[in-house]
Amino acid sequence: MEPFLGDPAFRIFALCSAVLVLKMIGVSFYTAIQRRTSSGYSNPEDTAFADEGVRASEVENAGVARALRIHRNDMENIPLFFAIGLVHVLLGASAFGATLYFWGFTGSRVLHTIAYARGMQPARAIFWCLGTLCLLGMPVKGLTQLQS
Amino acid sequence: MEPFLGDPAFRIFALCSAVLVLKMIGVSFYTAIQRRTSSGYSNPEDTAFADEGVRASEVENAGVARALRIHRNDMENIPLFFAIGLVHVLLGASAFGATLYFWGFTGSRVLHTIAYARGMQPARAIFWCLGTLCLLGMPVKGLTQLQS
Amino acid sequence: MEPFLGDPAFRIFALCSAVLVLKMIGVSFYTAIQRRTSSGYSNPEDTAFADEGVRASEVENAGVARALRIHRNDMENIPLFFAIGLVHVLLGASAFGATLYFWGFTGSRVLHTIAYARGMQPARAIFWCLGTLCLLGMPVKGLTQLQS
Repeated sequence: MEPFLGDPAFRIFALCSAVLVLKMIGVSFYTAIQRRTSSGYSNPEDTAFADEGVRASEVENAGVARALRIHRNDMENIPLFFAIGLVHVLLGASAFGATLYFWGFTGSRVLHTIAYARGMQPARAIFWCLGTLCLLGMPVKGLTQLQS
Repeated sequence: MEPFLGDPAFRIFALCSAVLVLKMIGVSFYTAIQRRTSSGYSNPEDTAFADEGVRASEVENAGVARALRIHRNDMENIPLFFAIGLVHVLLGASAFGATLYFWGFTGSRVLHTIAYARGMQPARAIFWCLGTLCLLGMPVKGLTQLQS
Repeated sequence: MEPFLGDPAFRIFALCSAVLVLKMIGVSFYTAIQRRTSSGYSNPEDTAFADEGVRASEVENAGVARALRIHRNDMENIPLFFAIGLVHVLLGASAFGATLYFWGFTGSRVLHTIAYARGMQPARAIFWCLGTLCLLGMPVKGLTQLQS
């Protein structure tokens, strides 16, 4: 696997993937904390370790619902990056392009999560758009490369 | 990364991945349009740029809920394709197998989205099944290849 | 693609990916069965093939809602594995590390699904934590490899 370790674009992709995986696991823990502090549980069996009298509800508490929406927005976007980012590397990305697209996306998604958790608009919309521009750029570039 | 650019199966995978990424981003915009036209927002801060008097609601508007289900169905299926499709390439897929599985899946998912948005049954179920058959074929083939 | 077929870590990754793809498709079918047995449909057009008098509802039946939560938990975790697992292989994983991380994660997720479907706590939480430990180990290892 030496060609990969020596490829600058792959190294940036590996770094950004690691950051995004850690960020998404962070959102899992954030949701768990929201459930705990608001006593908001979806499954009856989950209340066994909660305070007495706490009951599960199919309707999520507002803080938990927000955490779930943050996580859902990640799920809608980050797996696309994992796929198209690696394709971008394998099509022979330059270090400059990789820095622009991969760090652009990764930074935007980290800031999007912070803005979403704090209810900051239009900051959240701006970071979503920046991340999506990076996501759009890679397949468009790929399609032009594959045609030539 | 020359072995990849010269591999027909990888080129088809790269092309289909680009199409699916663009398709999923399209669903994001479709959801945003649904929210806008139905004034259906989940977060209080999102109504700042909406018409006066519009309030956020945890219960989604029917059009928005349908768009979210389309997106969710994509999230349940397309990341599986990204993973098992690339594994299929790296295990040495033929151009014929790649055309069959990759274009079969990609075409089915594009048509599934259209059928879901228009409420067309059983068309939607048929396209889901065709996509899932492609998703099932690749791991089964992979397991037989890895045993030999 | 011969270097991949001859790499033990990649072979384990390919095997685990195939198992996880089949497992997630299994959850899709589990949800469909829950919908059928509880007559719980979200889309009006889906009731055309159900018993007479069955109506669609935006509020999901409890059994269906549980199946959707199982699937959602998979979507929150398994795409992260697909990405960081392959990065781990491409950074030059040992067969020992691949066995530990890849089978550890795959086994944990299969058991997590079973525990979730049966409402078994704290078994479900334990399997989630084991899977997450594997998910955390790979990016941390990757970050140390990329710094050297």
